[in-house]
Amino acid sequence: MTYDYNSYKELAQTAADLQNAAAVLEWDQEVYMPSKGASFRGRQLATLAKQAHEMLTSDKYERILKSLLDDKTLDETQQNNIRLSYDDFEKNKKLPSEFVEALSKQSSLSFNAWIKARQQNDYSIYAPELQKMIGLKRKQADLYGYEKHPYDALLDEYEKGATVAMLDPVFKMVQEQLTPFLKKIASAKQVDDTFFNRNYPKQAQWDFAIEVLKTMGYDMEAGRQDLSEHPFTTSFSPEDVRITTRVDENNFASLFWSSVHEGGHALYEQGLPTSEYGLPLGAAASLSIHESQSRLWENCVSRSYGYWKHFYPKLQGYFPQSLGDVSLDSFYRGMNQVVPSLVRTEADEVTYHFHVMIRYEIEKALMDGSLSPEDVSGRWNDMYQEYLGIRPKDDKTGVLQDVHWTHGSFGYFPTYSLGSFYAAQFFEQAKKEIPGLDGQIEQAEFGNLLQWLRKSVHQYGRRYTSDELCRKITGRSLDFSSFMSYIEEKYAGVYDLK
Amino acid sequence: MTYDYNSYKELAQTAADLQNAAAVLEWDQEVYMPSKGASFRGRQLATLAKQAHEMLTSDKYERILKSLLDDKTLDETQQNNIRLSYDDFEKNKKLPSEFVEALSKQSSLSFNAWIKARQQNDYSIYAPELQKMIGLKRKQADLYGYEKHPYDALLDEYEKGATVAMLDPVFKMVQEQLTPFLKKIASAKQVDDTFFNRNYPKQAQWDFAIEVLKTMGYDMEAGRQDLSEHPFTTSFSPEDVRITTRVDENNFASLFWSSVHEGGHALYEQGLPTSEYGLPLGAAASLSIHESQSRLWENCVSRSYGYWKHFYPKLQGYFPQSLGDVSLDSFYRGMNQVVPSLVRTEADEVTYHFHVMIRYEIEKALMDGSLSPEDVSGRWNDMYQEYLGIRPKDDKTGVLQDVHWTHGSFGYFPTYSLGSFYAAQFFEQAKKEIPGLDGQIEQAEFGNLLQWLRKSVHQYGRRYTSDELCRKITGRSLDFSSFMSYIEEKYAGVYDLK
Repeated sequence: MTYDYNSYKELAQTAADLQNAAAVLEWDQEVYMPSKGASFRGRQLATLAKQAHEMLTSDKYERILKSLLDDKTLDETQQNNIRLSYDDFEKNKKLPSEFVEALSKQSSLSFNAWIKARQQNDYSIYAPELQKMIGLKRKQADLYGYEKHPYDALLDEYEKGATVAMLDPVFKMVQEQLTPFLKKIASAKQVDDTFFNRNYPKQAQWDFAIEVLKTMGYDMEAGRQDLSEHPFTTSFSPEDVRITTRVDENNFASLFWSSVHEGGHALYEQGLPTSEYGLPLGAAASLSIHESQSRLWENCVSRSYGYWKHFYPKLQGYFPQSLGDVSLDSFYRGMNQVVPSLVRTEADEVTYHFHVMIRYEIEKALMDGSLSPEDVSGRWNDMYQEYLGIRPKDDKTGVLQDVHWTHGSFGYFPTYSLGSFYAAQFFEQAKKEIPGLDGQIEQAEFGNLLQWLRKSVHQYGRRYTSDELCRKITGRSLDFSSFMSYIEEKYAGVYDLK
Repeated sequence: MTYDYNSYKELAQTAADLQNAAAVLEWDQEVYMPSKGASFRGRQLATLAKQAHEMLTSDKYERILKSLLDDKTLDETQQNNIRLSYDDFEKNKKLPSEFVEALSKQSSLSFNAWIKARQQNDYSIYAPELQKMIGLKRKQADLYGYEKHPYDALLDEYEKGATVAMLDPVFKMVQEQLTPFLKKIASAKQVDDTFFNRNYPKQAQWDFAIEVLKTMGYDMEAGRQDLSEHPFTTSFSPEDVRITTRVDENNFASLFWSSVHEGGHALYEQGLPTSEYGLPLGAAASLSIHESQSRLWENCVSRSYGYWKHFYPKLQGYFPQSLGDVSLDSFYRGMNQVVPSLVRTEADEVTYHFHVMIRYEIEKALMDGSLSPEDVSGRWNDMYQEYLGIRPKDDKTGVLQDVHWTHGSFGYFPTYSLGSFYAAQFFEQAKKEIPGLDGQIEQAEFGNLLQWLRKSVHQYGRRYTSDELCRKITGRSLDFSSFMSYIEEKYAGVYDLK
């Protein structure tokens, strides 16, 4: 029996409806759900995930995909969707449903143990569950299969084509080039950022961020911002893309840059083609490309001097008491302060990549067995000492700070750094291709930049891998030197480096 | 092949997960969804409904139910679930999926025409779509089958066992007994309620309602209140039951009594047994019993004099400027003002039932063909003139005021009146069985009343029909005289009737 493209589309989009419904339930869970709702919400989410997974690994879906794989009557978009969906199908099929269920159960156990360990500030409470999770992830790597390193199989899940062989040189550059750069900054005259901890009334922070988000081009009729414990972006379709943030009356930086960061993610999701809803070409290219969009807006744009030429007088209008005596120059330097710190999510643009590198090295060692789970806390602290010169005083500000491992997300962290590096490389290219971009940013005119991102990145969905996309846009693969040039130029100004 | 009870439970609860997920999406749609999200949200909801419907009408489900129908090893709860689920299955099976789809499509068309007709204040724009909908509903009545009147088949959907033969006498009593009662009130000295339209700051209205809801026993850790255009209650499990309300700075009555009304619905949902999640014994008995819970709290409790002995001083504390010069006595009389009006949702406890009766008579006539759709507006206005002595000046405040018919909900309205009458009868019984209930209400101690409702109504889910439940609780079937006694006693005080 042969199938037409519509049978494929209907099945894939039906599964997407279930997954997007799950995304609504997850959003609600983080944002509005009353506490007692958790238990039944858990089973509702499990049902949605199971139903979608069953559809996407069904014999029927396989027959449909196989019958369309060599269908030359399909146009290029259709062929790409079929090709990518078949890749996904093959990957999904490799995991037996009992394994998926075991992973999901271990994820709950790990998460609960992690919560308890954090409360008691004691990694040893979490270690046994992490050990079981690592056992499952090794099993998963075996099920997926790999050529060289078991970690490769997991990396591929978050970043198609990423391998240890590709990432080792990247993080070697992080270490070799950022270490002396950090030293250079450390020996310069330090900048002050204490005014960020003055009083910033919450509503005014909120209003200013919404104003900025609109200026960026975030369509608030196809999105909204809410509060949650950890900021995130979620999408139910390109026409409903939501972000969350958090607010701290005594820390201006907390809400603002996370709004802009999530806003960058949201612009990507809003820019995906609605015609490809639920299909690969309607989804983001990869996690690193997603992060490139958030980092580009957060760092390259909204931590630049020109940007604040426009926005700083407005900001002072919002907070005359706290910023009236702070010059634009001081404000700019303060927001770009570089200082080694213990918590990844609060790290600056430079030290951030040491946080990622440490997690990458530990994940790699856990996967090849050269590090045992009970030794992770010690190794973690040693590496912070070695690379950043500071040592966590306890597990809460050390190894217990991230939730990722509880969910079994091994291989996710590296995409954060890749995203920053892609951001620098894309932004460099944008400057070349958009005449007068610097001047536009100084006027808060972001239309051309957004248009360029839409055209260069958003419109393609998953059509290209990260590397293909990067080569298509910039003419070369990921090039760490773009990031180095970007930070060298920026911090020369911030720290008056020669 | 035989199946055990667990196969039934798993399938039914999986379908419930999908339906509850849909309820979350619908809640979000009314409360937080950005406007452009509507289109994809529509398809996500359609997918969830279709998946659940397919499960609940599947051959597998039929085999499971049939194999358990005569299983004497099941306990009573299990037998009741199987019996009721099989009834549901048979009913669902009677509608071919093409018919369900046609109904769903006509529902969208009718809704859009209704919106347009309201905007232009012209019933004739809506009439052709209503006509098509009525054609489908007659078809539906034929598919379901009925003994006497086609309307019976539709009534049964909302209120099991309700028929024209049962409802005609009820609405005859409405007409015969409430008409002279209304006249009596009309000839008494009228009460003033204009102070309700003074200024009531929104946040204070909100805070006061939340305080009251908590006092009623609404568990805010298993629920929450939000704003929406039309107040409603929704439940995703007994541990996540949400209500919505609306707020008007110049109308105290708008937020407060709808909060209490929805709070009554919510207490019912929170009181359903979690062990029976997704099964008939974990669902509400019927729409009329649901409405009995909201009306009992809204009218019997929170429009009583004793209730405000406790709450009025607090309320004056919230709104000293608007209520400082209004006595408890005036406040009480004002909230119980009886005046014929055009809009059902704003009607008082007495005239409300004429609004319902008019809709009931029109629906009945539309179903048996004695009234043609194009004549509905005229008939509507004539009946308002006849029964309430007022005539809508236009269609917007007349026949176009309710959304129900656009969704194909014919047979729904009567449950509103039944609910009020059950409420009066249940409350009368509660007073007999709970020693000192009046005194408790004067102290805002609602624990015993809630306990009584939990024990008498909530715990049973759908185990009993409305009539069975009413007889179990009060020893007799629905008795309009309970409602008459209740309003006669109340309005004797409000209007100083002899």
